[in-house]
Amino acid sequence: MAAKSVLILGAGFAGLNAARVLGKDSAVEVTVLDRRNYHLFQPLLYQVAMAGLSPAEIASPIRSLLSKQKNTRVLLGTAEEISLSEKKVKGPFGELAYDYLLVATGAQHSYFGHEEWEDYAPGLKTLEQATEIRRRVLMAYELAERETDPEKQKAFLTFVVIGGGPTGVELAGALGEISRHTFRKDFRRIDPRRTRVVLIEAGARILAGFSAESSAHALRDLEKLGVGVWTSTRVTKVNAEGVAMGEEFLKAATVIWAAGVQPSSLNAQLAAPADKQGRVKVQPDLSLPGHPEVFVAGDQVLYEQDGKPLPGLAPVAMQQGRLAAHNILRRIRGEETQIFRYVDRGQMATIGRSRAVAEVGRLRFYGFLAWLAWLFVHIYYLIGFKNRLFVIVQWVWAYMAYGRGARLIVHKAWKLREDREK
Amino acid sequence: MAAKSVLILGAGFAGLNAARVLGKDSAVEVTVLDRRNYHLFQPLLYQVAMAGLSPAEIASPIRSLLSKQKNTRVLLGTAEEISLSEKKVKGPFGELAYDYLLVATGAQHSYFGHEEWEDYAPGLKTLEQATEIRRRVLMAYELAERETDPEKQKAFLTFVVIGGGPTGVELAGALGEISRHTFRKDFRRIDPRRTRVVLIEAGARILAGFSAESSAHALRDLEKLGVGVWTSTRVTKVNAEGVAMGEEFLKAATVIWAAGVQPSSLNAQLAAPADKQGRVKVQPDLSLPGHPEVFVAGDQVLYEQDGKPLPGLAPVAMQQGRLAAHNILRRIRGEETQIFRYVDRGQMATIGRSRAVAEVGRLRFYGFLAWLAWLFVHIYYLIGFKNRLFVIVQWVWAYMAYGRGARLIVHKAWKLREDREK
Repeated sequence: MAAKSVLILGAGFAGLNAARVLGKDSAVEVTVLDRRNYHLFQPLLYQVAMAGLSPAEIASPIRSLLSKQKNTRVLLGTAEEISLSEKKVKGPFGELAYDYLLVATGAQHSYFGHEEWEDYAPGLKTLEQATEIRRRVLMAYELAERETDPEKQKAFLTFVVIGGGPTGVELAGALGEISRHTFRKDFRRIDPRRTRVVLIEAGARILAGFSAESSAHALRDLEKLGVGVWTSTRVTKVNAEGVAMGEEFLKAATVIWAAGVQPSSLNAQLAAPADKQGRVKVQPDLSLPGHPEVFVAGDQVLYEQDGKPLPGLAPVAMQQGRLAAHNILRRIRGEETQIFRYVDRGQMATIGRSRAVAEVGRLRFYGFLAWLAWLFVHIYYLIGFKNRLFVIVQWVWAYMAYGRGARLIVHKAWKLREDREK
Repeated sequence: MAAKSVLILGAGFAGLNAARVLGKDSAVEVTVLDRRNYHLFQPLLYQVAMAGLSPAEIASPIRSLLSKQKNTRVLLGTAEEISLSEKKVKGPFGELAYDYLLVATGAQHSYFGHEEWEDYAPGLKTLEQATEIRRRVLMAYELAERETDPEKQKAFLTFVVIGGGPTGVELAGALGEISRHTFRKDFRRIDPRRTRVVLIEAGARILAGFSAESSAHALRDLEKLGVGVWTSTRVTKVNAEGVAMGEEFLKAATVIWAAGVQPSSLNAQLAAPADKQGRVKVQPDLSLPGHPEVFVAGDQVLYEQDGKPLPGLAPVAMQQGRLAAHNILRRIRGEETQIFRYVDRGQMATIGRSRAVAEVGRLRFYGFLAWLAWLFVHIYYLIGFKNRLFVIVQWVWAYMAYGRGARLIVHKAWKLREDREK
């Protein structure tokens, strides 16, 4: 029997884990298509934005991650059109035909219809965005240092994070720590400890996906780092001056968006029922309704378990990717597919240098112990031995020295004639 | 006596070394102005372009390098105008008055009047340029892998380096090694070993600053890595298709410029005699003719020693920066300034993974021993203990695994709506 061709769109947690399952089976020939040449370890992306880690430390080339799988080839490119009837995917690379398709192109951040806010409040989903946020944060301190007008200086030293989920909490905690510790002795005119960090959350509490107890702990930890947490506060406008919340207005040079995500735009081409956000409702075996040869996994999927939709977390995507791959192999062998069931091994968020909240089943950890658990789990799952080693060294270093290893303001332009201060 | 204000323009090797000398003396108040927030270890910049090191590993924030010097403040900004009569420097930061000025803004690459070549052949002087070259090199392999037309594939797999000085030799050697070793197993359709790497040099031999014997050694080492070295060859045009050399034309998707440098454009404002390239002729004590309170150091200076101009190398800049600082202190104390004399401790260039040429006085080293010496010297001079540690780990890793740790294609645009394949 000729090998069946399996096309995987996206090499995030779902796609990469699926590729690894399929790479062991000679019944398939696998093609992995991604817009980037690297797999990104998203849970640590905020560390790049906060100058703690370098991009290369949380990203590994997909090609080298899969180079040992003889049946797998990797292509760089953007899937633009999925033709379910022709069983083809089209894009600038030409056409790719498939027998089985796994769509795992994830999610991106969403401004709920206010795309014009993006200029003033970048989101945090890609390495480029992380580098842009890092540039803005570092630049704000530099401009504050050379500013003589105290009003303007205050705006440069005000940092607003919108959205109190894990990413928002981690960003605000890191900003608090940077101002209190890392930058303490580096400036002459300004005192970085006078920095204002404000975390804005529309809901009644931060970390809504965690227990009320963990949420309260995180709040206390943030306040210890000098972060103002404004819950039940809805942002009505973001512009170059700052953030409006109804009648109120907070002047801030740096605003970061961590408030919402939307699924990949490819979902619209899957002709399947979706929820309000656009997440696709799949069959219990993760296949697309009416298309037993197409599977969908990861953040772009709406999957309800015990009456609740699963959150958009890396472990969910990894488990879905693996099950989808096994179901493809089962279908090829003529076996029955299996139903997806998420095994929850817990969730955690870190706050600053040595605090975190962690929940594993009914257990809850806080403070330094939770931070150690967080560190261990993240480094363990970080792909590639070398990256793990580097991140450990970086962290041990940063822990001892209160340092930030990657404090570079990198410009966008590379040409001589464009290389002006911006 | 009130402290005298010393303004240093540029925190490269000259400026940083001067700042460190002045930081020990309470007779001065020092301001260091730089366009970037980091000091860049230029000798290893080609490693960033070749995906061997991450930007943060060869760059350290100027602020943290100088944070222990109580008499020193660091400002981010571009010096746009030097008023020698008013003793002021102007720019977007406002005005900075000085009692003593050290101009150490270095050099950038030059296209000898063909600035339009820059689009097709980036130079290598900044981190942004290094990242752009890395993007082009990695992208060329990705596009070759998905290309079906063999002619186009060949152009994607042709890499041209223009200029056979140390940077050109190091780039060409690294390209040869990547194609032979690093990428060997990562692609399916293309064989990276079929990559063509061509190093073009207008002069009769590469590494013209070295002895003929070292030059011949470097040539043999490059040829072992499959690099074609075309000496006595003058480039007459560079465009999107490739490189023209008179009647000849070489099709290449990736061209890198390592052929020439020009001094900082601030030189034009110093009202001093200069050579054809624009380098300023200074007094033997490095002060500007007619302005005993202004000193110039580093790549933008023409300084003749034993009848020959000193080369634009890091050790020259470091020694000049230190002497200029001491001469400023001498002048403040009313002492006589000293004459600059370069102490040559040798020069070296590396070729690929484990070969190099090194010259120390009359001694010459080649091969692995020279490479070890090169490694030791570069890591020793790399600023910041943490960076040194990281680079060692990276290199030990790369040496063992034939790896390239930083193989990321990073886009310029960070916004969602601009995030298309480019």
